[in-house]
Amino acid sequence: MMTSLTTALSNFFFEYETPRQVLVKDKRVGVVCRLIQLVVLAYIIGWVFLYEKGYQTTDVAIGSVFTKMKGVGYTTVNDTKRVWDVADYVFPDQGDSSFVVMTNYIMTVGQTQDTCPELPGIYNCTSENDCKEGDYKRTGHGHMTGKCVMKTNTCEIHSWCPVENDLQIPDPPLLISAENYTLFIKNSITFPQFGYTRINLVEGVDNNYIRNCIYDQVKDPLCPIFKLGDIVKLSGFTFSQIAIEGGAIGILIDWICDFDWHARYCRPVYNFHGLYGADEAQTSIGYNFRHAKYYVEDKVEKRTLIKVFGIRIDVLFRGLARKFDIIPTLTAIGSGVGIFGVATVVCDLVLLYVLPKRDFYKNMKFKYTTMKEAEPVLQMNNTEKE
Amino acid sequence: MMTSLTTALSNFFFEYETPRQVLVKDKRVGVVCRLIQLVVLAYIIGWVFLYEKGYQTTDVAIGSVFTKMKGVGYTTVNDTKRVWDVADYVFPDQGDSSFVVMTNYIMTVGQTQDTCPELPGIYNCTSENDCKEGDYKRTGHGHMTGKCVMKTNTCEIHSWCPVENDLQIPDPPLLISAENYTLFIKNSITFPQFGYTRINLVEGVDNNYIRNCIYDQVKDPLCPIFKLGDIVKLSGFTFSQIAIEGGAIGILIDWICDFDWHARYCRPVYNFHGLYGADEAQTSIGYNFRHAKYYVEDKVEKRTLIKVFGIRIDVLFRGLARKFDIIPTLTAIGSGVGIFGVATVVCDLVLLYVLPKRDFYKNMKFKYTTMKEAEPVLQMNNTEKE
Amino acid sequence: MMTSLTTALSNFFFEYETPRQVLVKDKRVGVVCRLIQLVVLAYIIGWVFLYEKGYQTTDVAIGSVFTKMKGVGYTTVNDTKRVWDVADYVFPDQGDSSFVVMTNYIMTVGQTQDTCPELPGIYNCTSENDCKEGDYKRTGHGHMTGKCVMKTNTCEIHSWCPVENDLQIPDPPLLISAENYTLFIKNSITFPQFGYTRINLVEGVDNNYIRNCIYDQVKDPLCPIFKLGDIVKLSGFTFSQIAIEGGAIGILIDWICDFDWHARYCRPVYNFHGLYGADEAQTSIGYNFRHAKYYVEDKVEKRTLIKVFGIRIDVLFRGLARKFDIIPTLTAIGSGVGIFGVATVVCDLVLLYVLPKRDFYKNMKFKYTTMKEAEPVLQMNNTEKE
Repeated sequence: MMTSLTTALSNFFFEYETPRQVLVKDKRVGVVCRLIQLVVLAYIIGWVFLYEKGYQTTDVAIGSVFTKMKGVGYTTVNDTKRVWDVADYVFPDQGDSSFVVMTNYIMTVGQTQDTCPELPGIYNCTSENDCKEGDYKRTGHGHMTGKCVMKTNTCEIHSWCPVENDLQIPDPPLLISAENYTLFIKNSITFPQFGYTRINLVEGVDNNYIRNCIYDQVKDPLCPIFKLGDIVKLSGFTFSQIAIEGGAIGILIDWICDFDWHARYCRPVYNFHGLYGADEAQTSIGYNFRHAKYYVEDKVEKRTLIKVFGIRIDVLFRGLARKFDIIPTLTAIGSGVGIFGVATVVCDLVLLYVLPKRDFYKNMKFKYTTMKEAEPVLQMNNTEKE
Repeated sequence: MMTSLTTALSNFFFEYETPRQVLVKDKRVGVVCRLIQLVVLAYIIGWVFLYEKGYQTTDVAIGSVFTKMKGVGYTTVNDTKRVWDVADYVFPDQGDSSFVVMTNYIMTVGQTQDTCPELPGIYNCTSENDCKEGDYKRTGHGHMTGKCVMKTNTCEIHSWCPVENDLQIPDPPLLISAENYTLFIKNSITFPQFGYTRINLVEGVDNNYIRNCIYDQVKDPLCPIFKLGDIVKLSGFTFSQIAIEGGAIGILIDWICDFDWHARYCRPVYNFHGLYGADEAQTSIGYNFRHAKYYVEDKVEKRTLIKVFGIRIDVLFRGLARKFDIIPTLTAIGSGVGIFGVATVVCDLVLLYVLPKRDFYKNMKFKYTTMKEAEPVLQMNNTEKE
Repeated sequence: MMTSLTTALSNFFFEYETPRQVLVKDKRVGVVCRLIQLVVLAYIIGWVFLYEKGYQTTDVAIGSVFTKMKGVGYTTVNDTKRVWDVADYVFPDQGDSSFVVMTNYIMTVGQTQDTCPELPGIYNCTSENDCKEGDYKRTGHGHMTGKCVMKTNTCEIHSWCPVENDLQIPDPPLLISAENYTLFIKNSITFPQFGYTRINLVEGVDNNYIRNCIYDQVKDPLCPIFKLGDIVKLSGFTFSQIAIEGGAIGILIDWICDFDWHARYCRPVYNFHGLYGADEAQTSIGYNFRHAKYYVEDKVEKRTLIKVFGIRIDVLFRGLARKFDIIPTLTAIGSGVGIFGVATVVCDLVLLYVLPKRDFYKNMKFKYTTMKEAEPVLQMNNTEKE
């Protein structure tokens, strides 16, 4: 028993089986098949390996974005000059990757918790019967008290009073000077699988360069300081228009890296695009939100409500790195060999079903185990000289 | 030398080798093997290609979310009516993808920088010896001054005074009316590799539709306006319960797109789920944070501290797009051919080791290079008619 | 016609073709080829399957992070004691995944909209001619009025006055006590494809444990409460240094899960690293932003501007789950078979071009369809005993 196992094992190790093959000396089928095989080989080497870099594995980056606006804006409303600096016009203030730059606003100063008439168009009334106490609408500013204010023909409501009147949006926008603000972006990304970390202040972008540069797609594509007006223009908007009702812009930082090369070639590319369809569907354009500043005056809590129209900027990043790895390499080779097998099948079909001497080739390729249904084989058998 | 190379090359190009095969006319092995091959073929075509769409490459979306709450809330605390609008109850206010809607609160009005007794339970004392000056605990509200306040039996501390007393959470929640607030979500996604951009205001969701619709899983699955009460219910919570101590809810917008079809079929699906185990581990339920409104009264800096209990909503999105690509197609085919090879190996094992005529088939399949160890072959040799 | 199709079909189903092979009984080639095949097999089974788990499909997590700081800080500036609690030193306050903890600050109390001299270094002047009315620089604090203030030798500007003087950053940092603050992190992740949800309060991390634990890489690697000083140290910074000008730190929560095992083995690992190159390029170190608190005093709008230097913490997470799936399994097998084919090609090359008996083997392997160019075959033909 032991011996037979040993014999089997030694047999297994000392012998090698290789497929027997027919060598068809036929110019037509030879050229056709070699061409098919060359195409497959070219595809595997040229396309999968060189062009698509199938020998590499990929890693997706995680990271963090820090932003900082600079610039001062001025408004003159009712002959009152007002200066707006970063702490005034950026929301939120801590340098998030997603923030809003105010470009226009409706300010309602000194609101208190009180009762006052609603805006026209929401709870119109001609008598107290139209104003049911406690009732309210989702789009209204508060609950009705039950009174009808004759001066405005609207119901009286409990609310922050006076109610903000946002029916008229200032045009031209109050903070048109926002166009000259600058945005500084810091983006740090990590490829956790490969263990590389990069920031967008790459080689050559040092303190000296940053102090004076402004991003330009052609001349300064690596400068991390952007003029707000440029960002808007590169996204396909017109500043004077988007500034009125606001809009949303995405700055996409693209990191396409190949770590088979030195990490210094891993550099960011900045792309700009409008986020919420400014053109196509005119559904819900603009970007606004309400911000309140609370204070106490004469023991009464008050607030200044600002309806902020602004440009929301989302700094997104996408990091895609590639690096040589043995698994995808061998998978690509293995599946390439499989495709070679497909080429062989195609050639065999040509050989066995298309060529004039197909019966002869069929006979050479195949050997039949039983004679009963194999008459054509017997006929041709003498041509075989083995 | 040149000639022999040319000959070799022309030989290579004008000839073609194909494996020689044995055609086994045996019903059992034939049926078994054809079935195995059909199963493999069905798997490759049906499963890999049609079901899993193995001929497609995938792309993951990046994007941006904008949210906007609407609605007014009322509270009556100590006979004081108070109205809460969006600027009061949403944190942060600029329409982020992650925000908190206040549903309950503990307000401490008029805190100043002063000394006052700590809450019971943190620095209990019976005499000054229990209160070491300058000492403090991580969970306390400030550093001890060294005095013991006899009225409360707690140490006196430097802090914002009076200290917030959050031992009793208002129940029922003060802003139970939050149930009727509505949330409007705008979500824009981009597939950078495929170059497609979609927003969740898809075809058919226009201004007219938006003005009146409320999301409903069955009737209005594409309406981007959600009732807060519905969101809570769809996440598996009860509003009156979650409103007391707060909670966290994820709204997942799922974009599963197949860009071999028209982009208009790429539509969002909204899913809702509780984020931090409301049920299982009772570890750290609720959601709260502290928000301060600063003001100056009589030259003294004061603040109103609000402990906000609320529903934190995280709007997440996942975009997964597929599109035909030649590489995965050929990889799938190539590896399918490989699996075909496995099927052949299985059939060969049946043929060579299971069937009664296995020795006969073995002899037909293999040709031995040496005669010494191949006696059984010689025996069977005459059955071969070649 | 019908019959011939039936015959063809029954022929197809009842027969089976298998490649004919040469069994080479040669110790050298046998050992070499078996070794090559074993290496390939070991690679496929050991590396692709066991080590890289090629039989699994992967899923990437989406999720949500909630943070909560605890601790009280003290400052003594100009003999004024001041206490700082969470509502004072964390920006933003609602428990975001990305937030800033103030460690140092420059406070400018009581700014109003007015005119005042600019800081030295921006608009220096010796006479009114140096100050062009309405002109401004991007890095300045406002527009010039046209006057030159002789006391400071700088132009007068419209601005929030007095202008913040940030030329001197307090050193040592004012809120050095921030080192003892603690950070509590809740992270919930969902693997949408696999349908698993996990939070970082895993089995064993219950209310009791959380009340007393502090994260420690060795002793308490699952405790979700972190001392700020530890976070800074683990990121490779020195607290007393980073606290002066601020910095950015990433806390990466790594979830590497294998759902072929029970979900309870899917546990978070916390990693800490500095985000924006503290060491290498000294480009733009530090982290600061400006925060304003608005109030009204004597009918005049004022604000307290704080230049906040702080540690920005970005809590990032990466969830990568694996689970058995039939497609990658069969793809791996299929492409492994392909690589086996490559091994066969290598062995054939050895057999046909390297071995001394190569012509003999060549003759056994190949059968030629035409006799003309096949003289060497005829010569060797008698050695074949078939």
